Amino acid sequence: MRISELSRRSGVPTATIKFYLSEGLLPPGRATSATQAEYGEQHVRRLRLIRALIGVRKLSVSATRQLLAAVAEHQGDLHQTLGLVLGARPLTGDQAAVEEQPSADVQELVTTLGWQVSPRSPARRATAESLEALQALAPDITWQSLVPYAQLAEATAALDLDGLEQTDNPLERAERAILLTVLLEPVLLALRRLAQENESAKRYGG
Amino acid sequence: MRISELSRRSGVPTATIKFYLSEGLLPPGRATSATQAEYGEQHVRRLRLIRALIGVRKLSVSATRQLLAAVAEHQGDLHQTLGLVLGARPLTGDQAAVEEQPSADVQELVTTLGWQVSPRSPARRATAESLEALQALAPDITWQSLVPYAQLAEATAALDLDGLEQTDNPLERAERAILLTVLLEPVLLALRRLAQENESAKRYGG
Repeated sequence: MRISELSRRSGVPTATIKFYLSEGLLPPGRATSATQAEYGEQHVRRLRLIRALIGVRKLSVSATRQLLAAVAEHQGDLHQTLGLVLGARPLTGDQAAVEEQPSADVQELVTTLGWQVSPRSPARRATAESLEALQALAPDITWQSLVPYAQLAEATAALDLDGLEQTDNPLERAERAILLTVLLEPVLLALRRLAQENESAKRYGG
Repeated sequence: MRISELSRRSGVPTATIKFYLSEGLLPPGRATSATQAEYGEQHVRRLRLIRALIGVRKLSVSATRQLLAAVAEHQGDLHQTLGLVLGARPLTGDQAAVEEQPSADVQELVTTLGWQVSPRSPARRATAESLEALQALAPDITWQSLVPYAQLAEATAALDLDGLEQTDNPLERAERAILLTVLLEPVLLALRRLAQENESAKRYGG
């Protein structure tokens, strides 16, 4: 297909596609003349993934380039691919993440749950930091308080992964993983507020 | 107790307490001389609630004043109090919320779940808006896709309300409701990312 068709199929403007080509995010098409090239289905899928990384995960162009290279390196390994696009796995050479001291509280939580989580996972730091912020105002909350919440998160994550298995293509699955995780977060928080109102009405309502 | 003791007990600086007194957020203490006053336990609890409303829920001073007046009006009605402090119930005279058109998708979801949620609840709008944002990029997601997530949110809300029942005092419970809802949100999102990594390792890991 021509670049105009690629733009229509991916929903990305032609000027933006040209920018991604010049930045090396998108591999060049097959040249058919001095000024024209032919693009394939892989370009459509890769463009959608780029749009999700930049538009939804809010990565910079250079972080996106680095991430796409890492995804290409682990092609076929779905666990690695999902870890990379979701930010669960630090990019090679990410020294800040590599040198980090793991949180003892989060380690106890992960061990208690029997979860398989990389010691370098950025989600560990996110859990430790958000737990600390909570404890500053509610000191009686400990990692133990989180165990029942984590078990519900486990059930939620199974739903998430079920949603990904509706497609076979690794690039499409990576794109969908970003949409279903990042864009689902505000939906889940809103559902929780609705559910709290319902639970409060059930317990204390007249 | 003197204002200095009130400051120590509540963790709020004396200058800030004086500002809240002058703004009418905190009722005056019992005057013991021309320049001194005596404060009680109710002042400690109310200060903690103010700190949670301003510092955690990020309300303005005037919105906090309005909210505290509404809480005082519904004293003893825990469902109303929780609804007010969590933002599940619009303040009286909030025309934007009152005139709003309810979302049909969210209504279908709420009906399917059998939830008791006020037709004016701001959480309905939050759910509708975040679902729309998701659908713009993943059009196959519907309110039906959210049902299993909502059922897990229901279980999470039961844990939330259990956490509130550890105290009897209505002002303390209101303060704790804010801490356990707003400050727990980033913890739950981080736990979800950890759980996704575990689920991915279980399904696709080597």
